[in-house]
Amino acid sequence: MDKKTSNFKSIGIVGLGLIGGSLGLDLQKLGYQVHGLVHRSSTAKRAQERGLAQIISTDPKILNTCSIIILALPLEQLLEPDPQLINELPMEAVITDVGSVKTPILEVWQKLHPNFVGSHPMAGTNKEGVEAGIENLFKGKAWVSTPEANTNLEAVEIIKKLAISLGCNWITTNANIHDQAVALISHLPVLISAALLKTLSSEEEESVISIAKVLASSGFADTTRIGGGNPQLGSSMIANNTSAVLRFLNSYKESLNKLEETIISQNWSSLKEELEKTKDIRPDFLNEK
Amino acid sequence: MDKKTSNFKSIGIVGLGLIGGSLGLDLQKLGYQVHGLVHRSSTAKRAQERGLAQIISTDPKILNTCSIIILALPLEQLLEPDPQLINELPMEAVITDVGSVKTPILEVWQKLHPNFVGSHPMAGTNKEGVEAGIENLFKGKAWVSTPEANTNLEAVEIIKKLAISLGCNWITTNANIHDQAVALISHLPVLISAALLKTLSSEEEESVISIAKVLASSGFADTTRIGGGNPQLGSSMIANNTSAVLRFLNSYKESLNKLEETIISQNWSSLKEELEKTKDIRPDFLNEK
Repeated sequence: MDKKTSNFKSIGIVGLGLIGGSLGLDLQKLGYQVHGLVHRSSTAKRAQERGLAQIISTDPKILNTCSIIILALPLEQLLEPDPQLINELPMEAVITDVGSVKTPILEVWQKLHPNFVGSHPMAGTNKEGVEAGIENLFKGKAWVSTPEANTNLEAVEIIKKLAISLGCNWITTNANIHDQAVALISHLPVLISAALLKTLSSEEEESVISIAKVLASSGFADTTRIGGGNPQLGSSMIANNTSAVLRFLNSYKESLNKLEETIISQNWSSLKEELEKTKDIRPDFLNEK
Repeated sequence: MDKKTSNFKSIGIVGLGLIGGSLGLDLQKLGYQVHGLVHRSSTAKRAQERGLAQIISTDPKILNTCSIIILALPLEQLLEPDPQLINELPMEAVITDVGSVKTPILEVWQKLHPNFVGSHPMAGTNKEGVEAGIENLFKGKAWVSTPEANTNLEAVEIIKKLAISLGCNWITTNANIHDQAVALISHLPVLISAALLKTLSSEEEESVISIAKVLASSGFADTTRIGGGNPQLGSSMIANNTSAVLRFLNSYKESLNKLEETIISQNWSSLKEELEKTKDIRPDFLNEK
């Protein structure tokens, strides 16, 4: 491989969708030279028009001169990376990803590159693809890193500085705890929100459904938002975090059954107490976000 | 009772909380003379300061001259109304309520007043009490009416005009269909959202919970919003709509079990298909709202 001198102002982004495109916009504003690798030439053309990176190509060789490379790819492509891509990653570069499940990614990538840092910026919208990237997506959001015992700590420091320069709060934890936490606050909510939408589609009383459609308002919109999100992302997050998701789904069903018991037994003071507790716990999870 | 001549420009509001206070603000702007009845003199003082009505009192006699009276009370007080209040309602006035469950309210109020119209403006915020009322709360929202065979249709027309003048879309349906529809899009969501918060509080791994608190973002905030809402309102809506809520809760648990089966069997294409269906169904319930 023909490697040029490392230059920390040159950053490669693999994939210019919501996360990659947003990173491209912000990193250029911060003065970096951004090289964007995409799969199709039609995407390259549109990404160029949108100014998502200075250099955009379908040829992984554009990564050769980059000192930091961010893999902004869907989980499946992170877990079964293209050999051509791996071939073109400079050995001295620092590599990170943005995948929403960390344990299986570390299993793959720790073997593939000496300077791999597993990370996960907690930012998103309901958009996807080359049109989705926006400025300031990361400001004020958490950027989680999950270093292992053999992770290069200098590489971690480089990604930390990058995340902080984008306005993120840097969080360090281990991959297993990260994966359980996101199962609880992100993957389980996809399922319970989707199940509500599924309940609507299985209701057979058309008169009820047609009035429900007219009456559904903000509370309904909020509760169903992530169950009506990106199906590919939702299913792949869950597919790659199965044991944690199933554990919390089980706990969720118990919680729901306990609430149901208060209704069946018409124990309204107990139902109200439960709702007081849930009202009290919620702000603990939304502090300063 | 000392009844004065009806004057359709004089409207009584019983209760000046979120709904009553918001009605008071908007109806005064529309040129009505608003008489607000509250329970405590401290509330009367604050409601006066906020300008929620022109005349505010703890004495139900202020309703004597009103031609329209809106009962903006919690469900419990609508279902077991104060005899003093009933005594002071002019027989020729049109009476409506804003309760979120209609069948039990009609059972009580059809016997109490000849011009009672059951209705339900689908508007709200997460605030309550005398500070909660805001302008333009009802603009663009549905206002549902549930007339029965013996309901005075002239009275319905009067409430319809009032709702439309507030910017609402007027919807007519029967009480049973209304109650099932709100069970589906409002009362069930309270339970499933609260159960998610309850799941968090029952998780024993402190390391997971502390990272979950840091990582919880907009998706989590949306899904838990109504489960972290007013406990009194949530429990009383459910307490007064038990059979519909339990029917849909059962259907919801089936939906959740079917999603769980795709995970246990690792049938990711089926999970993705399910999430595609839930993504497709959601906009049907959010059209133009």
